[in-house]
This record gives sequence, C-alpha cells and structure tokens, in this order.
Amino acid sequence: MLVVMQEGAAETQIQQVIDRLVVMGFTVHRSTGSTHTLLGGVGPVDDFEPGDFEVMSGVKECHRIVSPYKLANKSFRPQGTIVEVKGVRIGGPEVIVIGGPCSVENSDNIEACAEIVAKAGGRGLRGGAFKPRTSPYSFQGLGEEGLKMMRRAAERHNLIVVSEVMDRSQISMMAEYVDVFQLGARNMQNYNLLRELGNVRKPVLLKRGIAGTIEELLLSAEYIMSGGNYDVILCERGIRTYETATRNTMDISAIPVVKALSHLPIMADPSHGTGRRDKVLPMARAAVAAGADGVLVEVHPDPDHALSDGAQTLKPEQYATMMDQIRAIAIAVDRFIQPAK
Amino acid sequence: MLVVMQEGAAETQIQQVIDRLVVMGFTVHRSTGSTHTLLGGVGPVDDFEPGDFEVMSGVKECHRIVSPYKLANKSFRPQGTIVEVKGVRIGGPEVIVIGGPCSVENSDNIEACAEIVAKAGGRGLRGGAFKPRTSPYSFQGLGEEGLKMMRRAAERHNLIVVSEVMDRSQISMMAEYVDVFQLGARNMQNYNLLRELGNVRKPVLLKRGIAGTIEELLLSAEYIMSGGNYDVILCERGIRTYETATRNTMDISAIPVVKALSHLPIMADPSHGTGRRDKVLPMARAAVAAGADGVLVEVHPDPDHALSDGAQTLKPEQYATMMDQIRAIAIAVDRFIQPAK
Amino acid sequence: MLVVMQEGAAETQIQQVIDRLVVMGFTVHRSTGSTHTLLGGVGPVDDFEPGDFEVMSGVKECHRIVSPYKLANKSFRPQGTIVEVKGVRIGGPEVIVIGGPCSVENSDNIEACAEIVAKAGGRGLRGGAFKPRTSPYSFQGLGEEGLKMMRRAAERHNLIVVSEVMDRSQISMMAEYVDVFQLGARNMQNYNLLRELGNVRKPVLLKRGIAGTIEELLLSAEYIMSGGNYDVILCERGIRTYETATRNTMDISAIPVVKALSHLPIMADPSHGTGRRDKVLPMARAAVAAGADGVLVEVHPDPDHALSDGAQTLKPEQYATMMDQIRAIAIAVDRFIQPAK
Amino acid sequence: MLVVMQEGAAETQIQQVIDRLVVMGFTVHRSTGSTHTLLGGVGPVDDFEPGDFEVMSGVKECHRIVSPYKLANKSFRPQGTIVEVKGVRIGGPEVIVIGGPCSVENSDNIEACAEIVAKAGGRGLRGGAFKPRTSPYSFQGLGEEGLKMMRRAAERHNLIVVSEVMDRSQISMMAEYVDVFQLGARNMQNYNLLRELGNVRKPVLLKRGIAGTIEELLLSAEYIMSGGNYDVILCERGIRTYETATRNTMDISAIPVVKALSHLPIMADPSHGTGRRDKVLPMARAAVAAGADGVLVEVHPDPDHALSDGAQTLKPEQYATMMDQIRAIAIAVDRFIQPAK
Repeated sequence: MLVVMQEGAAETQIQQVIDRLVVMGFTVHRSTGSTHTLLGGVGPVDDFEPGDFEVMSGVKECHRIVSPYKLANKSFRPQGTIVEVKGVRIGGPEVIVIGGPCSVENSDNIEACAEIVAKAGGRGLRGGAFKPRTSPYSFQGLGEEGLKMMRRAAERHNLIVVSEVMDRSQISMMAEYVDVFQLGARNMQNYNLLRELGNVRKPVLLKRGIAGTIEELLLSAEYIMSGGNYDVILCERGIRTYETATRNTMDISAIPVVKALSHLPIMADPSHGTGRRDKVLPMARAAVAAGADGVLVEVHPDPDHALSDGAQTLKPEQYATMMDQIRAIAIAVDRFIQPAK
Repeated sequence: MLVVMQEGAAETQIQQVIDRLVVMGFTVHRSTGSTHTLLGGVGPVDDFEPGDFEVMSGVKECHRIVSPYKLANKSFRPQGTIVEVKGVRIGGPEVIVIGGPCSVENSDNIEACAEIVAKAGGRGLRGGAFKPRTSPYSFQGLGEEGLKMMRRAAERHNLIVVSEVMDRSQISMMAEYVDVFQLGARNMQNYNLLRELGNVRKPVLLKRGIAGTIEELLLSAEYIMSGGNYDVILCERGIRTYETATRNTMDISAIPVVKALSHLPIMADPSHGTGRRDKVLPMARAAVAAGADGVLVEVHPDPDHALSDGAQTLKPEQYATMMDQIRAIAIAVDRFIQPAK
Repeated sequence: MLVVMQEGAAETQIQQVIDRLVVMGFTVHRSTGSTHTLLGGVGPVDDFEPGDFEVMSGVKECHRIVSPYKLANKSFRPQGTIVEVKGVRIGGPEVIVIGGPCSVENSDNIEACAEIVAKAGGRGLRGGAFKPRTSPYSFQGLGEEGLKMMRRAAERHNLIVVSEVMDRSQISMMAEYVDVFQLGARNMQNYNLLRELGNVRKPVLLKRGIAGTIEELLLSAEYIMSGGNYDVILCERGIRTYETATRNTMDISAIPVVKALSHLPIMADPSHGTGRRDKVLPMARAAVAAGADGVLVEVHPDPDHALSDGAQTLKPEQYATMMDQIRAIAIAVDRFIQPAK
Repeated sequence: MLVVMQEGAAETQIQQVIDRLVVMGFTVHRSTGSTHTLLGGVGPVDDFEPGDFEVMSGVKECHRIVSPYKLANKSFRPQGTIVEVKGVRIGGPEVIVIGGPCSVENSDNIEACAEIVAKAGGRGLRGGAFKPRTSPYSFQGLGEEGLKMMRRAAERHNLIVVSEVMDRSQISMMAEYVDVFQLGARNMQNYNLLRELGNVRKPVLLKRGIAGTIEELLLSAEYIMSGGNYDVILCERGIRTYETATRNTMDISAIPVVKALSHLPIMADPSHGTGRRDKVLPMARAAVAAGADGVLVEVHPDPDHALSDGAQTLKPEQYATMMDQIRAIAIAVDRFIQPAK
C-alpha cells in the first residue's frame, strides 16, 4: 500500500502514519521528494481501508497496491479455468449457450423450451423456480415442482440445468435438481449466500449486480472460492446508467477486462442486459465477438404470453437465428458453437 | 395504462393491442389523432410490464399510469406516517438522531458509544452485529453477543436499538434485542427478507440501494407493508455515480421527492452517503435542511482504531458539534432536536 | 402529447390543463377512467416541455408522444442513409475503418500513419489539428499546418480526411483540407457549432457526448440536418458510468438502438470508448458484430512516444491484427471490409 | 507520480519504466517489496497521462500524485478567495442570491423580475440572451437587445448582472452589459471559450457539466485562471445519474468537497439541479446548509407562461418564501443573507 502525504505535511504527521503502519505489521519505505513524501507499506496485511489513512491529518491519498482478491486473480491460474459440468466445458474453445424461459411455467412449456434450446445447439436449460420480482403483486414462481419439471425436460434433451438460488435455505433442496447454481444480480453482494455457495460442490454462475464494479464482482467470486468452490462462472448482464433507451447498459468491455484480471470464465446475458427482444441478437453477437465464453438467453415458445419478462424473451425462430449468427461469429474469433441438430 | 401506437400503425396492429388489453381485463379508450393513435386502458390490473406492449408490432411506447405501489403511496395516508418506538416518534416535528459504531466491538466500547450518543441529544443506538463486508477476509461481527451488549448499553442511556438484519434466519433471535430492524442497502431488493419483515411487528429502517431508484425504494417498502407491517422508515444513504471524490453521491433531493410521493418518514445516513468523516457534518446539515425526519451516523470513541468503517466514523467531539449544528438547522425549518444533556 | 391527471384531480384542475392545451393549439381528447383522467393533445406543436405541465396542480405526468426529432427519424428515410465521400460509402454493406494518430505531429509521422492505415484496408485518415485537452498545460495541436500535412498524406494513400472542428471560426479554413468534419463528444450540444455545420456541404461525424442520451444525440443530428446538411454520421465512443476499469463504458447497444430509431449511419470509436489499447481489439470486434457501419481508431507508428493519447493508440501490428479480426466478423454479419493491400 | 509494477515484473520491465521516467525528467525513487516494486517519480513534469505508463509491460498501476491543477488548488490561497463585483462579495460571510428568468423575454418582464429579486434580498439578476436549447425548433433568445434590457433593470434595482456566454465571438459585446460571465454546463470543457475568458477582466461563474467530475471542474477553472483571470466562481447544478425522479441529481456533497480542495467560492443552482419548481426550496436550503456561498435560481412573475424552463422557475411568492427560509438557514451556519426590503 502507498500513502502520499500532502504538500508540506509536518514531520509529526508523517511519523503518525509510519507508526500506524508499523503497528499494523507493515515494513515502511519512505521516499522524500521536493514537494511530497511517499510512504510505501509492504507487509502481510491486506485487510485495511485506504480511507482510514486518508482521514489522518497530513495525508493526501492512500492506494491499495495488492489486489484485494487472490483466488480469483489471473495470477492464481494464468492458464485460465475451465468449469466442467457433465461434459460441458465452460471457458474452453466452445462457446456455450444456455437458454430457457424466465420462469418455469408448467411441464409442457419447459419441455417445449428445452426442445427449442437443444435443437439449435444450446447446451443448458435455464428457468426460474423462485422469482425475485420488483412488485410484491407479481407471479412468484413454482418452487421445487418447477425444478423437477426442468430436470426432466433437460435430461430428455441432454442439457445441463441452471437455476437461480435466492436464499441459503434453498441450496440443499435445489442441489438435487440443478447442475449450476445461478446467483442473481441482486444477490451479488449477499455475503451469507456467497459463503454458503462456497461449501457447495457444484458450479456457481455469478451475475454482476447492476451497480457492481468489476472489482466487486471478482471479490464476490473470491467469497465463493475462499470456501473451496473454485468453479465460478462470471456473467455480465448490464449495469445501471443514465441511458434509458435500454433497460440496462450492457458493459461489453467487462468481458476483455475480466479476461485480463482473472482466470475465471465469463458469460453474457443479453436478455437482461437489454430488456428488449430485438436488441438480444446484436448484443449476443457483440458478446461473442468480444470474447465471452457463453451466452445466457431467455427463450419461450410464445413470449407474448410468458408469465414474466416477455419483452426480453426470444421467440423460437429468433433464437434459431441468433444461434446461426453467433456460430458464425464464434468461428471468426477461432472458437465454435455446437451445430444445430 | 396508456399505449401510444407508431405513426402509421396498421389497423390490425391497433386491434391486436386492443384485444390483448381486453383479455387482460382493461376497458379501452381509443383516441385517434392525425399522426398517432392512443389507447388508454383502465382496469383493475396493475401487474403488467409496459415492455410487454412495447415489443408488439406497431407500438411506440407504453406508460404505466397508476403507481405500482399503493400502501406506500402518499394518497394512502395523506397526513403522513409517524412511526413510534418506545416514545420516540419518527416522522413528526422532532428530528431523530441515531448514532453508534459501525460494528459492536465489545461491551465497554458500545457503552462508551451509547453515552456519547445520548449525551448530545441522540435518541437511538445503532451498531452492526453481522457485518456484510466486501472482502471475505474482513471482521464479520459479534453476532448475538454483540446485540446483548448493545441492548444493555442502550437501556442504560434510554436509547432505542437499531441493528441490521442480513438473513431471514436472524429475525426471531434479533427481535429480542432490537427495536428497529435495519435493512441494508445491499438487501433493498432481497424480496424474501422483505416479505419476512412484513410479518414482524417492529419497525423497519429500509435503506436505499446504491443503484436503487426512488420508485424501487417505495416498491420495497410496499413489499414489507403488504405483509401487514406499516412501520417502515426509509433512508437515503448515497447512490453510485461516476463521481469518485465521495464514496457515493448522497441524493439529498430524494428527501423532498419521497415526501411528495409517500407518507413514510425518511432519514439520511451521511456516514455511508459520503464515506468520509469530514463530509458528514455538512451533509447532515443539508439533509435536515431538506426535510429529513432523522439522521443516522457512525460515531466511535476512537474511530482511528475502530474495527470497521473508521474513515466515515465521527469522533465524539465531531458528533457533538454536528448535533449543535443540526439543532440550529432544525429550528430554521420549524422542527427540533432533543437538547444535549 | 398526453397528460395524466392525479387520482381525484378536481374538475377545475382538469379544465385548466385543457385550456392551456387549447391555447397552445392542441386538439384535446379527454378520457375519463375510474381513477384517472387522461388528456391527449394532438396538434402541430412540438416545442413544449412536458415539465411545464407536470408542475400544474392536479397533474401527475405528461408524456411527449411525437419524437422531438423528425429529419433524423427512421420514418423520414426508412431505407437508411448512405453518406458518400469521394467514393467511400458509409452506411452501406462495407464497414469503413478510419484510423490515424490522436494529433497530427509532423509530416513524417502522419505519412507513416496513412501508410499503416491504408495498407491494412482502412479508408480514412483521422488526426487532430486542434486538441481539446483537459489540462491547459498540454500540447494543443499544429492547426492549419497539421491539416495540410494530413491532406497530403491522405491523398498519397487514397484516404478520406477526417478531423475535429472545435470552433465556428475554424470551419471555412478546415473545409479546404477535410472531407468529413468531426464534432467531438464535448461539443455534442454546442448548438452554435451544430447550426453552423448545418450550412456546410461536407459530411459531419457527430460523436455522442459522454453524458449524452441517444435521444439527445439524435436531436443534435437534427440541429445539423435542419440547416440542410443531411450527411450526418453518428459515432458511439463511450459514456460515463460508475465503472472505472475502463475510461468510459462503451455502449455497444447504442448501435442497434440507433439503427431502430434513425436512418443515419453509426460508427464506433473503441479507442476513446475504452481508453486502453488492449481493449480496442475486442471492442472493435463487438461493434462490428453489433452492426456498426464503421470503426474509428487511433493508430501510431510508436504510440509510446505519441504526443497525446498514447495509452489508447494501437501499434501498427495491433492495427493490422484488428483489421483481420473485424474483416472476419464483418463477413459473419454479411458485410465486408476492404482487403489489405 | 508513482508506478506500481506487477507481481513478478521482470527487471528489464522495471528498467524500461525507469528509463522512460528519467527521459521525461523525473528523479526516480525505487522501493522493492516482497511482491511489488514501486517507482516514485519526482520532478517538474505534470503533463503526463498515467495511462501511458499503465500500458507498458509489467506495469500494474500508475498514479498521479501532484494535483493537475495549481492555481485552483486550496494551497495556492489557503485563506480562500472572495470575488468582489460592485460591492457584492462572493465567498465571504454573506450568502449571495442571484435570480431571474431563464431567458430575457422583454423589457417589462425583466423589470418585473428584477423587482422581485431585489425586494426579497437578492443581489444579482440572471437571464439568458442566447439560449442553448436541446431542440433546434425552440426559442433561441433576444441577443444584445436582451442584455440591454437586463442591464437597465438591474441598475434600477442595484443588482449585478449575470448572463451566459456561449461563444468567443460574444465576449466583447457582452462585456458592456454583464458583470459576471456565466459559463454553462455544456461548455465546461469548451477550452477555447475557457481560454478566452482567462483574458477577460470580469468574474466568471463556471457551472459544472452534467458529467463533469469535481476534478474536471477545477481543471476548467485552472484554464481560466492560467490566463490571468483569478475571479472564478464555481457552481454545482446537478449531475446526470440513473435516477429519473429529478432531471439531474444535485450533488450537494460537491460543496464541501470543493471547499476542501480549492480556495474558490462555490454557488448552487437548484433550478437546473432539480428541474422542478417544488424541489427548488428544499435544495436551496440544503445547499446553504452545506456551505454554499450563493444560490442561483430562476424566478419569473408568471412561470406558467415563461418562454423557457417554466417548470423549474419559481413563482414570486415561492421565491420570497425561499429567501426567508435560506436566511434562517444562513444564520444557523453563521452566515447571513441580505434582509428583504
């Protein structure tokens, strides 16, 4: 860590900072310039707040130098991580597509979704059993019954199952049905849930919060990994900005940024990232072009009558077109997507 | 609700929208202009997504007209709500100050905090027992033991107890010690927790998320209220913007906006809103001047050695100065703060 | 336009709104529902502020229905606009690449840049002659001398010349040297300059401001077009958000959004959009995949010694690699980029 | 400046950075820790981009240590600056109020405005002669004629005149009529205009751009000051965030932040900061409570018929009430506002 003293900071102020650093276990390097004194602290301590130093008198700025995350850091596994789930390898040369409805609605519907997804080359089935809705008066999901339906449909079509966990109490029940636990954007910093998922032996698909920085996303991954579960898949799904033409602003640049900082795979969710069906195709193409390891999309046989999120859900033919388009893009970036059946 | 058709929308497109509205139970008013057709839908249905109509062909825009929240709406209780907790009335002429450390650290420390808070005219003691920390390697709180310490200290100084609940499983245990459940910014849209707090018969201090809109804050209040718990106190604590000079940008204008839209009281938390001790005083003054019903601040006998959030925690003398300053401001806006003892 | 009255608005309040609408020349359609009254105004008037109605007593909301821009609107030219400059067609099947240094530095340097750009299939040479710098102490550009150098270099390599105009007084001088006037992000709402460019008979490359909405970008295009200059090329170059891992957040979704709202071509500038050389390639790929009509990049024979913006400027070999990559992406989306020479 | 090398950076990479620093004229201090090497550069050079180092191989981060602004820096004049205009002292104990219409409309109207402003204790008259409007079809201002009207009205009521300059060409003409040049938010980074205003010998009221950081605001002040004009008054007027309940989010915390970083006075504009008349009063109170040196508001005898910005313009009685309220707040923070006449 590094402390920059203010111009003209008094020697006693400098000594107070040095003393505090030494008490915390840092070795201090002092560098006295013509206008500013710099204090470099080297030590085993990572758990400090730069702000604690910035409020000391005579201090101008304090910078953390070592990344606050270690296990999620690129240097921990420079070759990159491939998360393997029943033969599906996320983070390798194949770009994985996971599709399905916003919520599991009924048995026929999820079967129809699974067929659509698999036929065009998708690898996973997604669907919510517990729906976090902004309004308390909206449809709230089918729960365990929905997961059973989804499991059966997925197995018939040889797809892996991805579903969102919303509460610690759901984990053990869900573990019977899902292959990948999805952690929703609203829970990116739900630390109790993150910690619990660290004890699970199934991969976690961790979505970026709408106000989450990339550093915070990696720190949330660190929470899970510090419990021993290294199979974390990150997911960009749009951040909140001033622009209202799209529901969120999909931060495509997060994909190359994460690739440079971390070894973890990263997917993209253009359905939530844009909120509008007609924007899903171009943004899925953009994500794959930028290097995403997979795409998560909402698709439904009849989105206009879907129980939730219809506006951002693809129609079957749009999904098939998207698959063709991103298959071509994947080739252009030296990767591939499973052929349609 | 209102649907605006695109310029030159075909009659069949207009009919499709009308049909869908009728199926949903709306009475439709049609207004045909020279360039645009407007369809006004009036009905008992609130649970729809404007986006579902906006993706229909020929539709330009869809607007929700009735607020999606009812119980939190000003019109539900135009005279305003006063939340009463052991004689402390939040939302009335008195501006309430609740202070204390970020985390409960030990028995002596919380006692010292309670004394500082009460002496200068504070009415409540705050302190975390479960600490949601961004890094998994940071101090995580004392749990129930901390709550016991806080309860004892608060009672000695005649303060109400406010502490953050982070998980449904903590509610029944915490109910023995706290007077007000605080719901943190990260959990503003944790709907399971919101629903559970709707069944509790203690007030909830609901903090705005760092990416939460004012409408979403009111919808979260609605979640709690729809369970039967009408004692919700809102709290502005800063939103995430591009500006980095402060940790968050405290949206002081949220105070008059909430006052116009809702009957619920609203407090302000300048400690989290700014992240820096030296900015807490001016922002506490600004919040009271703008009409806040209370102020929530972090104070500690020795913030430089606090276990968490030291940089934004007031020193005892700063807290006393703040109390004098906001007492003067309260008078200027025809309200009052309890005198110092 | 549409005015939604508050629940229980008095008849006199409704009449006041109707009166005001009538005075402004609107024909009013009234629709009385069980809770709300809606007033639809149809008329020749576009120049009003919804806010002016929203502050009237009894009014809940006011929505503009007709787009505030007409000439930039898709409906004005549904088939799309192709801007043609000396045989280069922007907005057609070819994806255009315009490259060059941040600032024109000297004759040899711009010649080297032009050669790099042209050799790999680029179509235009960019370079600043007047540099808007955040600090008053930075290099400010070569002015007319720089434009002369750029013109000569461009002609030798058969490239069109694009350079930024910063002030009305520069227009007539610049018109001798440039083929396309670039309007920088900071001037997106410099209305005097926009109006003046409306009188010019050369295309304008209009960059989105870092806080500009897509609607505001189209309104700025409207300013230029209302003067008679219909050759406007839009450019996405990143917006300001809370994320600091990249200098700006490139809003790739703006590309399909603009394509749906307007007939104007849109390019992307991944150099300014990311601020970091290593992010330029993936974001150029993403932009082309999303449907951009062109890419604007900074390239320099030796970016580490460039006089400005070195960090975001591509090295020659990176530029050549980018061209190969986006050429493959262009094919995947049924478009093409000129082959390398 | 400080360069942090990556963990395990090679000695050759470290030497490359050292070489570059030395070439630029820095004296280099090297500090080798167990994981990271730090290089501190001390020297006369301020004009560098941290990003230029961050793209060098082996470099993790580069931080600027010395503020990029000097003349606007608090340390340049620790006692603070008072801008004096015809006896009105901005930055001293008096809190200055400047009011008037959005645009000068006609002679009677501006006279009526001046009377309203002066009567309640205002000190300056504001009004636009050149109106930067988002739509090219809106009213564009009266120009010089408007300035003449404003000058006469202001003199009759002993007010100083503040009006916005939009283009370099207007400066010499405007100088005959205005006491303070206002630089609008959209021009905060119009460097040609800033530089020109550095040569003027009248104060400049510099508004923060809607996407401007506080550091950028101070750099823009530096531009003006580096030309020799030290009489710069800053003005907070709202920034663009994701919240849509107000037109902009007024960053009240910018007031204490600027007070800590700079010696320049800072005012607040709650009219533009909120966009809604009913939010102006609480935000004016908040600004004065937070330490603003003045308030700039829009007031009009009949805002519902104002030619522009009516929704955010105060009615005369609201203005008078605001003055009473902020006069009380000013006293509470040991300052004062001129009494009403």
